Amino acid sequence: MLIDRLIKKITELSAPIVVGLDPRLDQIPSYMKEEFFSKHGHTPHAVAEILIKFNQQIIDQIHDIAPAVKPQIAMYEQFGAPGIEAYLQTISYAKSKGLIVIGDIKRGDIASTAEAYSNMHIGRVDICGESVEISQTDFITINPYMGYDSAEPYLSDCKEYDKGLFILVKTSNKGSKDVQDVKLATSHSLYAHVGGLVEDWGKDFIGEYGYSNIGAVVGATHPQEAVELRKQMPHTFFLVPGYGAQGGSGKDLQDLWAKNYGAIVNNSRGITGAYLTEKYKCDERDFAKASRQAVLDMKKDLEAYMP
Amino acid sequence: MLIDRLIKKITELSAPIVVGLDPRLDQIPSYMKEEFFSKHGHTPHAVAEILIKFNQQIIDQIHDIAPAVKPQIAMYEQFGAPGIEAYLQTISYAKSKGLIVIGDIKRGDIASTAEAYSNMHIGRVDICGESVEISQTDFITINPYMGYDSAEPYLSDCKEYDKGLFILVKTSNKGSKDVQDVKLATSHSLYAHVGGLVEDWGKDFIGEYGYSNIGAVVGATHPQEAVELRKQMPHTFFLVPGYGAQGGSGKDLQDLWAKNYGAIVNNSRGITGAYLTEKYKCDERDFAKASRQAVLDMKKDLEAYMP
Repeated sequence: MLIDRLIKKITELSAPIVVGLDPRLDQIPSYMKEEFFSKHGHTPHAVAEILIKFNQQIIDQIHDIAPAVKPQIAMYEQFGAPGIEAYLQTISYAKSKGLIVIGDIKRGDIASTAEAYSNMHIGRVDICGESVEISQTDFITINPYMGYDSAEPYLSDCKEYDKGLFILVKTSNKGSKDVQDVKLATSHSLYAHVGGLVEDWGKDFIGEYGYSNIGAVVGATHPQEAVELRKQMPHTFFLVPGYGAQGGSGKDLQDLWAKNYGAIVNNSRGITGAYLTEKYKCDERDFAKASRQAVLDMKKDLEAYMP
Repeated sequence: MLIDRLIKKITELSAPIVVGLDPRLDQIPSYMKEEFFSKHGHTPHAVAEILIKFNQQIIDQIHDIAPAVKPQIAMYEQFGAPGIEAYLQTISYAKSKGLIVIGDIKRGDIASTAEAYSNMHIGRVDICGESVEISQTDFITINPYMGYDSAEPYLSDCKEYDKGLFILVKTSNKGSKDVQDVKLATSHSLYAHVGGLVEDWGKDFIGEYGYSNIGAVVGATHPQEAVELRKQMPHTFFLVPGYGAQGGSGKDLQDLWAKNYGAIVNNSRGITGAYLTEKYKCDERDFAKASRQAVLDMKKDLEAYMP
């Protein structure tokens, strides 16, 4: 099962780390931008070529030390159709290098619409009898606000194609309190209620390590809530955003770790933009080597606070 | 302001109706599919051409009797990059015919990511100093689960470019109860809490009719909850899904109408797939004329139950 493969990879590499591939033009080396802008002008097509090349070099440097990558689709989608092409090609390249891919899409809609999203991202699209695989993504993130029937089409595809989900429970941003922290009549917070739903939705997808293909997004920026959810959701693997640029550290995560890690921590800008920081400053042509060093250092930071 | 233009158009046409453009291959006439499949095979590229042509014919038949269209991006995105191109071309064509366009994208993410979504859908994308308009959408739908800071980038673009939002409050699907109906410590339901947030977020965007550019999604399938929200959110215009194929009728909406309508009702399959039903059965080459008749009949059904 997918979740077992992820846990095996994390264990082999001692790295519960996912590299977020959310490239921003202002973090991409000038020489690389100039190469494609001079060919195609300041166009979405040029940007797509730049994003693919940038990601490929990062992937080449980290695929043997990190188990997974997480492209954030918004960073590609914003450039229209060429952007989506860059997203899909990034995923193909990551898969060809043996990485597990988490598509950070955070979709959520009624069942008939969710089916279309699921078809594309983790299933197959039917074109009048022809079954087409559009994306090779392993896991995707989804939004729980619309309830079980809006998640069900993804669960079906998870079953059929051995894919997985990370469902938003407690997100890393400050504003998450506006809805997720609301106190319920039961005296729990809404995120705990949603956590209960996710643990329940995942119960038919549990692998050999006791974790489900149906995981949860739980931010590193709320250590207390994360520990509470860890206890409440023993079979749910966590995808943890918020480390690094968003403020979370290895110390914040020290009480979150469980048997077989139980969580994978994302770092995006802190890895892909490392070469721009004082610590990793280098020639911009060495940007991907700086990313590699940032992964190795993150591994140390996490290990220092592991039980 | 955008919301005033929408209300003016609804009033002129006496039609608080938005035509959902969610084309499914099995609802598209065979002759049209054969034309493009014979040229390009059973490929996403062929499907994109089919979706564009189908939508254009619907738009030609309804643009003088309906104020707005609502393409559901999932139905396009599922075909990858060519699908996104079909989505964007559908929007351009609708705009060229004077329609207001609601992009049903239901995105929701942390601020830095929301900014990318907003840039594409209602703002401008910056390509190293070049400001590019990727989409001409007027309104988009977004998901509130991540709170205020996740909505803020869209609100900024609404201010700068006179665009609008419809934020999910109480959705039309049955599973919406799992999260949205949860009872809070205040004895309200979560959807009422979210309704309060949306009314508040929209307070700086109110136009001459007393409604805000920041609207809410409130399903036709929950009449009692909709009426409750109507009272609680006097400045919020409603986008109402769930009419027709999902089960809602003009009668269900009778207590929802307010001054200057206060709501626009979506119908997707009931209009674009009308030619396949007993009532509108016709030669498949006349599918778009059947759609026109379905809009006129929906108008009558709504009017029959208006105060």
